[in-house]
Amino acid sequence: MAAMKLFSKTIENIEKVSIDSDGSIKDRFNKLAIPTGSLGRLEEFATIYASIKGSSDATIRHKVVFTMAGDHGVSSEGVSAFPQEVTRQMVKNFLDGGATISVLARHAGARVVVVDCGVKADFEPVHGLKIKKVGYGTDNIARGPAMSREQAIKSLETGIEAFDEELLNGIDIVATGDMGIANTTPSSAIIACLTGADLSKVTGRGTGLDDKGVERKTNVIKTALSVNKPDPSDPIDVLSKVGGFEIGGIAGLCLAAARHRTPVLIDGFISTAAALIACAIEPKVNDYLISAHTSTENGHKIALEKLQKNPILNLDLRLGEGTGAVLAMSLIEAGVKTFTQMTTFSEAGVSTPRVEK
Amino acid sequence: MAAMKLFSKTIENIEKVSIDSDGSIKDRFNKLAIPTGSLGRLEEFATIYASIKGSSDATIRHKVVFTMAGDHGVSSEGVSAFPQEVTRQMVKNFLDGGATISVLARHAGARVVVVDCGVKADFEPVHGLKIKKVGYGTDNIARGPAMSREQAIKSLETGIEAFDEELLNGIDIVATGDMGIANTTPSSAIIACLTGADLSKVTGRGTGLDDKGVERKTNVIKTALSVNKPDPSDPIDVLSKVGGFEIGGIAGLCLAAARHRTPVLIDGFISTAAALIACAIEPKVNDYLISAHTSTENGHKIALEKLQKNPILNLDLRLGEGTGAVLAMSLIEAGVKTFTQMTTFSEAGVSTPRVEK
Repeated sequence: MAAMKLFSKTIENIEKVSIDSDGSIKDRFNKLAIPTGSLGRLEEFATIYASIKGSSDATIRHKVVFTMAGDHGVSSEGVSAFPQEVTRQMVKNFLDGGATISVLARHAGARVVVVDCGVKADFEPVHGLKIKKVGYGTDNIARGPAMSREQAIKSLETGIEAFDEELLNGIDIVATGDMGIANTTPSSAIIACLTGADLSKVTGRGTGLDDKGVERKTNVIKTALSVNKPDPSDPIDVLSKVGGFEIGGIAGLCLAAARHRTPVLIDGFISTAAALIACAIEPKVNDYLISAHTSTENGHKIALEKLQKNPILNLDLRLGEGTGAVLAMSLIEAGVKTFTQMTTFSEAGVSTPRVEK
Repeated sequence: MAAMKLFSKTIENIEKVSIDSDGSIKDRFNKLAIPTGSLGRLEEFATIYASIKGSSDATIRHKVVFTMAGDHGVSSEGVSAFPQEVTRQMVKNFLDGGATISVLARHAGARVVVVDCGVKADFEPVHGLKIKKVGYGTDNIARGPAMSREQAIKSLETGIEAFDEELLNGIDIVATGDMGIANTTPSSAIIACLTGADLSKVTGRGTGLDDKGVERKTNVIKTALSVNKPDPSDPIDVLSKVGGFEIGGIAGLCLAAARHRTPVLIDGFISTAAALIACAIEPKVNDYLISAHTSTENGHKIALEKLQKNPILNLDLRLGEGTGAVLAMSLIEAGVKTFTQMTTFSEAGVSTPRVEK
């Protein structure tokens, strides 16, 4: 019950973002010693960031990527190219610093927080890992619901708790990440459910299925949707019927970040599915979300269109972990730095345009 | 004459790049604890970088952006929204650290080297500035050639000398940048000449012309091409007739970087025009060039197609200075770090795929 309170209290306290409410951000950009608008999306990034923060001192000090991990009962249906134990092994790899997210987070100057939302294995408590296990993997969605409704709310709270705890160490901006063998399967189910798109348009190769594998996976999702009948108007029902513990965790992270007026870089396919759930729970969350990149996973663009997001990068990534999100985070930071560190025409003694547009 | 020797010696010593000649780069990526190909273009970036360096130790230590500055006689034709004195003022702003390139280079951990290739003003010698003036601005291309053929070669050598000198301070990767009021005008002329594209397709708003301004600019370029008749088969003729000192400088920088097996991030419209000249002088240079971003300037895509480059970023930038190039440089570095810092399946104890593609 205390837990349920955390969830309700978080969503009740999410405010809408008013973009550059007093025009002061635009005004500053127009005074910088550059042609008007020539910074392109860097100006957009700074505007979003400063509007969310509601502060003209928008310096970014603490960057955090949360990599949320969970296992999926549906992996027994052969929907992934990798065996289930890889979830556990990769969590260890994240903590040892040799994974892609470890390398790219160091490059971006972000700290990595790994959250066990429901891996089918026990971990020793170590620095950088938060154990918030809702269960030892979800149940097989091809046979019944992934989890109970209570567990779905608990999974959302893994993300809320992780964020709230880390706030003590400082968080200015967040990147989402995921690890969970077979988790493109529940993500496709969620996206089909919440966008209304045809399943074939939102089901892809994941970590490397061949055509036959994709066909099998599509059939498994079809079965999962017909067995569970998730209610598209009830995002928690969707999460519990065809979701995953780490997907709930990422959705919860989005809720908590929004509640604390913190911008969130949404990573790829799985994170975007989670973002759809968060926005369906509380539409105001969308104001805090920035799409990091376009994944090559089939259907990612459909999910992004539903969120009305224009991704920053297109590097043909399809790895998850938060990898695209930390790369894009660095570009947000670049935009914010143009806002805070550049000199104006008058400060720099630079002449203004002679031809007015 | 010593100068002419520097130019010839540089181009004679440029070698072709063989991409991953022994397959060892691909082999390493296939062993990393990720699904095959899931790093997308990051793998491509590391492959290009390591192939150019010809070394499996591909660590990037020294990142340098060269911002080449020069003035243009054609600015008297009203082809730019800004007055000519802004070139000088912006050089000062670069050196004072308040310009966009100053901010973004700090963000990327790159050092900025400003080169005066031909600004119409004298500068005090200060740290970070190389004075290699070929002239006090080019002549007005609407009336005659921008410069003599000898000056064109000298302008190429400003870039070669700047690179060669900085090599002593360490250079692992280079970003190009430009500053020169009115320099989209000669760039459009060069691109039209070397790609054969219609002038209207490669002439744009520059720093902010309105439709009438673009029409005037297009007519000025048309006049410049008919007055000077640059020979498309002779890139030095094109540079001398309708180019610019800083454009020659950037082209020379590309030649010198290639000669020293150093990857070059090509910035936007002006840098791409310069890259076309460098590649026309010596086609092998193209192996060392990476397109950083797509500028919004009309015709940039046509120039990139001629170079057969797929730009990394698309952030609607149109600023020059090297701003897009340093942002993309950081992504090249990210790719290289995945190559050098990640652990393999066996090192990390991660199971390999159970389903073969």
